[in-house]
Amino acid sequence: MADSSHAWAAMTPTAFLDRAAAAHGSRIAVVDGEQRWNYTEFRDRCRRLAGGLRAVAAGRPVAVLAPNTHVALEAHYGVPWAGVPLVALNTRLGTRELTYILEHSDAGVLVYDPSYAEIVGEVRAALKTPLVAIDAGSAYEDLLAGAEPVQEEVADERSLLAVNYTSGTTGRPKGVMYHHRGAYLQALAMANQFALSPHTVHLWTLPMFHCNGWCFTWAVTAAGGTHVCLPKVEPSEIWRLIQEEGVTSLNGAPAVLDLIAHFEGASPLSRQVSVGTGGAPPAPAVLRRTTRLGFDVTHLYGLTESFGPALVCEPVPEWQDLAEETVVRLKARQGVGNLVSLPPRVVDGHGGDVPADGATVGEIALRGNNVMLGYLRDEAATRGAIPDGWFRTGDLAVRHPDGYVEIRDRSKDVIISGGENIASVEVEHVLAEHPAVLEAAVVGAADTRWGEIPVAFVQLAPGASATAEELVDHVKARLARYKAPRLVVFGPLPKTSTGKTQKFLLRARAAEEHL
Amino acid sequence: MADSSHAWAAMTPTAFLDRAAAAHGSRIAVVDGEQRWNYTEFRDRCRRLAGGLRAVAAGRPVAVLAPNTHVALEAHYGVPWAGVPLVALNTRLGTRELTYILEHSDAGVLVYDPSYAEIVGEVRAALKTPLVAIDAGSAYEDLLAGAEPVQEEVADERSLLAVNYTSGTTGRPKGVMYHHRGAYLQALAMANQFALSPHTVHLWTLPMFHCNGWCFTWAVTAAGGTHVCLPKVEPSEIWRLIQEEGVTSLNGAPAVLDLIAHFEGASPLSRQVSVGTGGAPPAPAVLRRTTRLGFDVTHLYGLTESFGPALVCEPVPEWQDLAEETVVRLKARQGVGNLVSLPPRVVDGHGGDVPADGATVGEIALRGNNVMLGYLRDEAATRGAIPDGWFRTGDLAVRHPDGYVEIRDRSKDVIISGGENIASVEVEHVLAEHPAVLEAAVVGAADTRWGEIPVAFVQLAPGASATAEELVDHVKARLARYKAPRLVVFGPLPKTSTGKTQKFLLRARAAEEHL
Repeated sequence: MADSSHAWAAMTPTAFLDRAAAAHGSRIAVVDGEQRWNYTEFRDRCRRLAGGLRAVAAGRPVAVLAPNTHVALEAHYGVPWAGVPLVALNTRLGTRELTYILEHSDAGVLVYDPSYAEIVGEVRAALKTPLVAIDAGSAYEDLLAGAEPVQEEVADERSLLAVNYTSGTTGRPKGVMYHHRGAYLQALAMANQFALSPHTVHLWTLPMFHCNGWCFTWAVTAAGGTHVCLPKVEPSEIWRLIQEEGVTSLNGAPAVLDLIAHFEGASPLSRQVSVGTGGAPPAPAVLRRTTRLGFDVTHLYGLTESFGPALVCEPVPEWQDLAEETVVRLKARQGVGNLVSLPPRVVDGHGGDVPADGATVGEIALRGNNVMLGYLRDEAATRGAIPDGWFRTGDLAVRHPDGYVEIRDRSKDVIISGGENIASVEVEHVLAEHPAVLEAAVVGAADTRWGEIPVAFVQLAPGASATAEELVDHVKARLARYKAPRLVVFGPLPKTSTGKTQKFLLRARAAEEHL
Repeated sequence: MADSSHAWAAMTPTAFLDRAAAAHGSRIAVVDGEQRWNYTEFRDRCRRLAGGLRAVAAGRPVAVLAPNTHVALEAHYGVPWAGVPLVALNTRLGTRELTYILEHSDAGVLVYDPSYAEIVGEVRAALKTPLVAIDAGSAYEDLLAGAEPVQEEVADERSLLAVNYTSGTTGRPKGVMYHHRGAYLQALAMANQFALSPHTVHLWTLPMFHCNGWCFTWAVTAAGGTHVCLPKVEPSEIWRLIQEEGVTSLNGAPAVLDLIAHFEGASPLSRQVSVGTGGAPPAPAVLRRTTRLGFDVTHLYGLTESFGPALVCEPVPEWQDLAEETVVRLKARQGVGNLVSLPPRVVDGHGGDVPADGATVGEIALRGNNVMLGYLRDEAATRGAIPDGWFRTGDLAVRHPDGYVEIRDRSKDVIISGGENIASVEVEHVLAEHPAVLEAAVVGAADTRWGEIPVAFVQLAPGASATAEELVDHVKARLARYKAPRLVVFGPLPKTSTGKTQKFLLRARAAEEHL
């Protein structure tokens, strides 16, 4: 930037707020309950936040523990503008994990929603190095009111923008380092994929602490759209906001879509709402239900390490005349690289590409500017994850003849029974199509005769009933018989803090049940 | 790229063809008359072109002289993949200009459409340094057939991608240097602005030699859409392609839109077609006519130096309920910075920002990654154009209270009469609204009493008639009286090779007429 004979600029996603304030200053930027701010006000608040934080952070990262409120959103601009990285904390974590993350990231400030005052007290008592804690209520407003508006310029677009911790079902969470360049480009890819524009009204059903809300925290602003905050995923509130605020887009895991579609007050939408879904492949039943209500659902695939969705199951004109059942199957695939990703690879054990035959399984490998800088203070893990410029996802998939990638299973979830591979996700989808089933998870249990057998854990829909035998017959009628569960266990599924089913717990239970 | 512990990649717009081939390999990429190629074939052809060119270019730039054919399009990938810059030549230039540009750019190869064989012969005879000339017919196909497919990797994203020569009504054309990074980001901005997607069918009504087709040569590919070539702007052919190929978007100067809207076979579209227009502000009459037919027109503003459209008159929800006459006026403004531009400035003589009052005139200044590297072999001109990191456009404008920029006049086209500034464009728009007027240009003529007086040059619509007095009264009824032309001259308007009205010629004629 110092060279005055060139007009270029470092890429940073916070620049999108400068653009929105200049181009769309009087448009509503943020709706949070009864409060609303336009883009001029939103930018001013974020610049004051930067001024206030710069004085107290002393160069250390700023962590935020908040649901999807305007405070969580403002942190995505105010913290980088203070010249320090943002650490958006998963609100479902416990004292131990939060303490670990705050220490590991060396956070100097913690901005917290008042509803987390108790756990914050416990965490502060446990921390070895003290930090400045700021209540997101009046203390936060006082900080803004008393601060000078500032915004630090980004000199190096590959410098640290944010640290997002993986949920890690095993071992310690890892701090995934985001750079400005990657977040900027990922935001552009998301804006393009969902045709975000000044007409966009985006509902925050996806936690902003997941990959910075898949970079929609910046993408919606880039487009000059409106952010509608949603502190709690509550179907009646979601439907109210869709109608009253004129929501045009939202994101969420398939379980969230299911919740929306199953709400008793659900009714066909008067206009289409774009939906990005990810975290798990959407079951055909979920796709069907939401599509019929008027949601235009696109399946996305990515990881914390890839700034969220690196793959998009891009809908194409060739699908328009296909039968609904075919389309939902095609749309449940992980898809193709997004606009800014290099084409993803599916590699075999020797690093070569598997054939695009829809059958040969390999590991998804990603490369591009929307791949992390690395893991914070863990060079060995970084080298392990990116051994040769390609990030290894750990997810096993096939490539179809049309180029679309489809996960056959998370590597550890392949069930090998009688020498045959069973993709648990395939059986789960079929179970979820049964009208009585709300959600299903399938894992393997060791078996002396077959090696492993598939065991299903099923949560029935409220008020519905089905026997194990009925469900097994349902699967047998649709898939190879060896894929049918040998055992069905009813009850709610255990979840991680990020909403993923804890299969390792189910595996332990399956082993007990099959003794 | 050499550092194996990072997964990032150099940004280059040619990467979009890799993406399209991987994600949308079997979709039709290019339609050119009876010929069509899918994305797998398109990429293969471009890689063979690269292989063939690499052998003959010997590191020197490759120039292309062709209308909007598949050859012109393929050059946008094949030439950079050969590791050398592309020089897309304006097909309307004469022997002298073409010779100058080929020598100034040091082009080693000239690929030319057979229809330009004669002028190419003259140019070759005039050139001091010989070059390899390749006929875009069979010689070109032979080159591809005999070549190995290759693609050079881009090491430095700020290296030279293309050189686009300004049309320069005065002086020598200047070679505007494009870098990979800028074209990549500009393509993303255009893809976003027009919501390009795999459903896009883009008709090439804009010459690809204008800022590489405003970077749509790469943007349409990025989205996995279809390019429909159009070697000649012919209304009947445009309407045929819109209907038969299912065109969803096109670009062009207001004069092209006018041509399309005035075609006798014009009829309301069965589906909306997105249109980007630029080069001159669209007259309200043109906007009205095209909008009523179903075209969704967005006004764009930019220069060769800014990779084409740096500003977009972004339509916003707030305009939806306004009267048509208000909307066409709002839409004729130059607008706001595009998604990847820094917010444009309007600066006064001291480099300060003018107030957003819709009245104070300043010069539009641009900054961002979509500003040129500089002028080829002309450091003095580069420093003059970018004195402080901000590119000075030479265009005078106001900023409205809503942040939108509107050109009051190209600096040299301000008419100062009796101490009052007259924006010639304002008078031109009003004249164009008269039903008998096809096109109008207004310039100043020196006058002893008033300093200058406005003189109008008017081309009437075919079969229409109007007197000078009628037109003057028409203006007086709508604008301040001092803005009305004192003299009206009827006849066709002289144009530059790029379709811009040659006002310097009109000024000379106005001076003669007003003697």
